[in-house]
Amino acid sequence: MGKGRLEAFSDGVIAIIITIMVLELKVPHGTDLASLRPLLPIFLSYILSYVFIGIYWNNHHHLMQATRRVNGRILWANLMLLFWLSLVPFVTAWMGENHFQSLPMAVYGGVLLMSGVSFVFLARSIIALEGPHSQLARAFGSDRKGLVSRVLYALAIPLAFVRPWMAGAIYVIVALVWFIPDPRIERALGKEEGARVSGE
Amino acid sequence: MGKGRLEAFSDGVIAIIITIMVLELKVPHGTDLASLRPLLPIFLSYILSYVFIGIYWNNHHHLMQATRRVNGRILWANLMLLFWLSLVPFVTAWMGENHFQSLPMAVYGGVLLMSGVSFVFLARSIIALEGPHSQLARAFGSDRKGLVSRVLYALAIPLAFVRPWMAGAIYVIVALVWFIPDPRIERALGKEEGARVSGE
Amino acid sequence: MGKGRLEAFSDGVIAIIITIMVLELKVPHGTDLASLRPLLPIFLSYILSYVFIGIYWNNHHHLMQATRRVNGRILWANLMLLFWLSLVPFVTAWMGENHFQSLPMAVYGGVLLMSGVSFVFLARSIIALEGPHSQLARAFGSDRKGLVSRVLYALAIPLAFVRPWMAGAIYVIVALVWFIPDPRIERALGKEEGARVSGE
Amino acid sequence: MGKGRLEAFSDGVIAIIITIMVLELKVPHGTDLASLRPLLPIFLSYILSYVFIGIYWNNHHHLMQATRRVNGRILWANLMLLFWLSLVPFVTAWMGENHFQSLPMAVYGGVLLMSGVSFVFLARSIIALEGPHSQLARAFGSDRKGLVSRVLYALAIPLAFVRPWMAGAIYVIVALVWFIPDPRIERALGKEEGARVSGE
Repeated sequence: MGKGRLEAFSDGVIAIIITIMVLELKVPHGTDLASLRPLLPIFLSYILSYVFIGIYWNNHHHLMQATRRVNGRILWANLMLLFWLSLVPFVTAWMGENHFQSLPMAVYGGVLLMSGVSFVFLARSIIALEGPHSQLARAFGSDRKGLVSRVLYALAIPLAFVRPWMAGAIYVIVALVWFIPDPRIERALGKEEGARVSGE
Repeated sequence: MGKGRLEAFSDGVIAIIITIMVLELKVPHGTDLASLRPLLPIFLSYILSYVFIGIYWNNHHHLMQATRRVNGRILWANLMLLFWLSLVPFVTAWMGENHFQSLPMAVYGGVLLMSGVSFVFLARSIIALEGPHSQLARAFGSDRKGLVSRVLYALAIPLAFVRPWMAGAIYVIVALVWFIPDPRIERALGKEEGARVSGE
Repeated sequence: MGKGRLEAFSDGVIAIIITIMVLELKVPHGTDLASLRPLLPIFLSYILSYVFIGIYWNNHHHLMQATRRVNGRILWANLMLLFWLSLVPFVTAWMGENHFQSLPMAVYGGVLLMSGVSFVFLARSIIALEGPHSQLARAFGSDRKGLVSRVLYALAIPLAFVRPWMAGAIYVIVALVWFIPDPRIERALGKEEGARVSGE
Repeated sequence: MGKGRLEAFSDGVIAIIITIMVLELKVPHGTDLASLRPLLPIFLSYILSYVFIGIYWNNHHHLMQATRRVNGRILWANLMLLFWLSLVPFVTAWMGENHFQSLPMAVYGGVLLMSGVSFVFLARSIIALEGPHSQLARAFGSDRKGLVSRVLYALAIPLAFVRPWMAGAIYVIVALVWFIPDPRIERALGKEEGARVSGE
């Protein structure tokens, strides 16, 4: 079974997810700067989620690049990943409209954590089909960067109840780590991850 | 006539259907767990419909896999299937916002039934073009799993007026049957269905 | 320049147009049949517009089938067609929510007319590139079916102010003519139109 | 790494951006011409933004036409372009609903300017990969038309506070310049831009 439609369908769903988030930026009635101010937290949370969805699209792109065929388990693992990503617009809006309070911050981290876990599940489903000696199995390797991200998300959930900004700082740091390709980190993590991390 | 655009168009429509359902999860004003509670039935109905749309996408994927070309009748049969699927977000929201009462539960079953009937119609349109000895005609075979699903949907409609939870139980069971690939059932239904059922 | 992206982009836009129309089916608060009744005109106008958008997608599919390459004029002609189609959800909702009154009925006809004119413009832009002896120029031929449709749309606009149902009857008839492939009509119109009309 | 998915994903996002703008055309309750009048500025701003998004899609199409492969930097540059374009529906609605007042007009120009800058950044990322002697580097050449557009956007921002219509006039002029392919201008700008400008 070819992978073309799985890619096309995922592209469609991710394109919609990334775009409908902007619908939460409700058009203000005023036309001065003050009328834009209430939108600032929603705009900031939009940027953060845009980067996260962008990271997942990039990683999905790289993952499927190394995949040659798909089966039923992979289709469902992919649908599970898209399910968690589909909740991102909801938690983004909830977080932004409530000025980054504890519970929304924690739930946001939970959705990111489940998205990360689903991505691993998808990658493993593909490796199970491609075989332990496939290019992907080697490329996915230890997946240290992904593992650290998931540990940080898990940490952010309780921290959101201590100080919400702590969870926020973690989300920004994880986003920057994936967004800014640091050649030193890339090298430290080893070349075998090269095909997967941050698109380098 | 190639099948590429029919696949691409269907992917687009199904991607939008599956994604706009999440727009019904209206962002709550509060930030405590209590403010999430009213969303629970809507969330549960979202999960159920997500699985159903996912099943249809998987089955559509398998069906087109075995198709080599399309004609006007197939284009319209496909549009009919997409029409019924496009009503899923509406009935999902109606069902979830009204805590699974009788009429919404019955209408939900009706939309699922019509989607199932449209799928059969689409498969038959393709078989009519491909010929009775085509790979698809053999693969589609007796379609026992699909037939049982449609009978169960038809049963759920009157049962929704007896006890709504009975219809709900049927929907969950049908979803699980397609979602969880049971090798024993697969074998019992025979290999000829292998290309169609639940992505195995 | 290849035609692949023009097809993919058009598929995306048409998929969204056909799907967002269903968002106008606002979820009713009640759960009895009476609460569904106000949705009936909106539902009927949804079906009508779904068929029209489906016709355009089918015709677009056939048109591009006979096209080998595109240029800037074709890209813009295609965007013009998509522009008029993008207004269909608006006029559909306006018509349905106002129980098919005169002005919305007339504006609906106007949008259909402009869509039809844009389609001709697109076809001519392609023929200008492909040459007067191309397969498409022969296939598009006299385009009697399209011409009759456009004349009927133009008639429906003033008729909507006499009796709204007259315009409605015209829209339903045009939709049926394209939807139901009548072999006799097909033959009468000549084989050269075969590649274009209603997907047969 | 192939460019197919980058194109498909961008097509999806741009298709959604161009389509959701029409959702701002809220269905009026009345059915006379007077009830349509308040929609006029929103409709005009929709047309303007539709043309701008259309220009970007055309230019993106041309740019990727000359691209053979992509890397991580290109993926992110493309996501940055899509980010700014995703804000177009918001600023379009804000501008239209407030009858083209100063601040919305200026912010609209700012989003167009950032989109233009992102496009240059994307083109440079591709040239960096393809090499300074690639077909694209020659085709992109001096990019005088793009440069003039960006200078005009930058001018429109302060002018919006002097007289909003001045900014509006600039936006319309820039749109027309890209929309109407003037062979004389094309020639004056040199053949090396031919692959990029307005789809000729």
